[in-house]
Amino acid sequence: MPKQLITPWDFRLGNVDYSYIIKQFGLEPADDELISRIKDPHRLFKRKLIFAHRDFDRILEAQERGEEFVVVTGMMPSGRFHFGHKLIAELLAWYQRQGVKLYIAVSDIEACIVRGLDARECRRITFEEYVLNYLALGVDLLNTKKCCIYSQWKNYHVRDFALMASSKITLSHVQAMYGLESSSNVGKIFFPFIQVADILHPELPELGGPKPVLVPVGVDQDVHIRLARDIAPKFEMIRPSSIYIKMMCGLQGPGTKMSSSKPESAVFLSDLPEEAGKKIKNAFTGGRMTAKEQRKLGGQPDQCVPYMFLLFHFGDKILKKTFDECTSGTVLCGECKARIAEEVRRFLKEHQFKMEKARNLLPKVEELQPLL
Amino acid sequence: MPKQLITPWDFRLGNVDYSYIIKQFGLEPADDELISRIKDPHRLFKRKLIFAHRDFDRILEAQERGEEFVVVTGMMPSGRFHFGHKLIAELLAWYQRQGVKLYIAVSDIEACIVRGLDARECRRITFEEYVLNYLALGVDLLNTKKCCIYSQWKNYHVRDFALMASSKITLSHVQAMYGLESSSNVGKIFFPFIQVADILHPELPELGGPKPVLVPVGVDQDVHIRLARDIAPKFEMIRPSSIYIKMMCGLQGPGTKMSSSKPESAVFLSDLPEEAGKKIKNAFTGGRMTAKEQRKLGGQPDQCVPYMFLLFHFGDKILKKTFDECTSGTVLCGECKARIAEEVRRFLKEHQFKMEKARNLLPKVEELQPLL
Repeated sequence: MPKQLITPWDFRLGNVDYSYIIKQFGLEPADDELISRIKDPHRLFKRKLIFAHRDFDRILEAQERGEEFVVVTGMMPSGRFHFGHKLIAELLAWYQRQGVKLYIAVSDIEACIVRGLDARECRRITFEEYVLNYLALGVDLLNTKKCCIYSQWKNYHVRDFALMASSKITLSHVQAMYGLESSSNVGKIFFPFIQVADILHPELPELGGPKPVLVPVGVDQDVHIRLARDIAPKFEMIRPSSIYIKMMCGLQGPGTKMSSSKPESAVFLSDLPEEAGKKIKNAFTGGRMTAKEQRKLGGQPDQCVPYMFLLFHFGDKILKKTFDECTSGTVLCGECKARIAEEVRRFLKEHQFKMEKARNLLPKVEELQPLL
Repeated sequence: MPKQLITPWDFRLGNVDYSYIIKQFGLEPADDELISRIKDPHRLFKRKLIFAHRDFDRILEAQERGEEFVVVTGMMPSGRFHFGHKLIAELLAWYQRQGVKLYIAVSDIEACIVRGLDARECRRITFEEYVLNYLALGVDLLNTKKCCIYSQWKNYHVRDFALMASSKITLSHVQAMYGLESSSNVGKIFFPFIQVADILHPELPELGGPKPVLVPVGVDQDVHIRLARDIAPKFEMIRPSSIYIKMMCGLQGPGTKMSSSKPESAVFLSDLPEEAGKKIKNAFTGGRMTAKEQRKLGGQPDQCVPYMFLLFHFGDKILKKTFDECTSGTVLCGECKARIAEEVRRFLKEHQFKMEKARNLLPKVEELQPLL
């Protein structure tokens, strides 16, 4: 039996062993000392949902000295925007408010070539799903000094650098990292270099030269970070830093995945609020076999999808209250889920109102971000 | 002893066995029947300097039916323009005069990444060596309906298609064709797809869709043709056709190479006419050991570099006369070389005058060919 959680924040989804991941991937833990250096940290830091890093010290140092650094992220325009994507968007907005410039890559090359989407559909998804949600979540896409959002097809800094970078790395190096085989297509061997170029191109001389770059990712993306870190010194660039975010699981519970293309696996930010509420009510919980048992032993928030929504997305007060009432057995799953569903509904109503307002800005985004 | 030539045109450089090459590479010979279908053929056809092809019938058919086809070529902006390059330029001009559109790729990606040239130097060479010579040799670079000359870095039709094409071919396929190893860099695996895209991009829907494409090449470039022919059907394109030009050897004689970067190996179109004349006079000839022997046996034009210049570049009359006087032993090498040197000097004087006149057109080329 997994160890019972003792605070509302000490969350391990299902039985994920984050110390093992840290060891396996060779990451540094995001410990209290590190977090204490962040002024007014984002809840992802406070709640240890960012659990590990590579060279995050360099970012903190730059921030402490008032020196420039940038944040890089990517979006795959092939599905709907869900609560997992929301986390990244909020973190971007948080950094941007502190004066940090964002580089947001739309991974439309891979979407087109690997996933077979046509360019028009990628563009529709980019605007309808990503741009609208980013705007509604407070990312300023209109201030080009503080944000560059771009299509990989159109950004030739990225495309050119990908070619240059690919000529510095041997085939066996890529094969070892990505496990490619002779039957892999050549595109697949080249795509990682486009992602590396997304990460490193802000350090190009044309874009102001070497500077610290921070990439918030899930640990599944770490291989790209490692390749970018291998390549950076070959171009006299600073190795990029990364922070690793715990992944929300799918609505079916620990071990399942939120997927942009599976409506039943995730709550999307464009779901009708009522529909989203129903999804929460039907989600997997940490309830016991019987009500009696649950009143005696308490529920298990670390197995509970609705609780995960609170932890990743909502305020301290409701989180603490829910944790206490759950683990003490005071409030059972039905009542608790209804309350969380209500939170989600309320959030979505407000958010979707902001999205509709943001729609007016789309032509302006298109005009000001010519690479999009 | 190699078989003595019996006509001025039946030229094998040194002892190159063109029938063997045709068999080895799986080409079709450019036989009399094929050539007879060309109206007023270029001297490269008439003299069998174009000795083989793939699917050239398709080009002839298009021409016979008055249907569109295009001619594609590439230039490596990393050295000086010599008499070998001149052949291709003249053939391009000849096709263009018949209303055929040309696509001329400046291979600046490879020049930068593999040969380490910087972009500014590539550009200088492109204009000073290639554009000026092309213009002086009658290629119309100003008529954008009849010519697109482009930098690979800037042509995103090409760059985008290279990515798409690379996703259709497996690593083992490329390894088998190009003999790549695990220690090869990834760029090297990707470059062939840029060349394939140079060849196939005129068939993209944005550029009018499938059409016959003709690529005049040396047999050393055949691997790119084969890869392009493998890829074309995957995009519902017509397999490109190719014609194979015999290669001029270096000034040191059969078995040596004309090289853009070795001044002593070739005559460049920007050589001072006097200097060029000297190069011809010092070039390897097919003379016998003694004057007496040569008067008796005659010279060997198929071993003779100055004769090669006549065959590849000058008129029928001087060629026939030289052949007869050489093989009959009437005129010895010294006198003969002086005569050919004079031809080369005369040509260069006139050509360099045209180049200087063409210089005025450079700003216009730059303006009208935005991808250059």
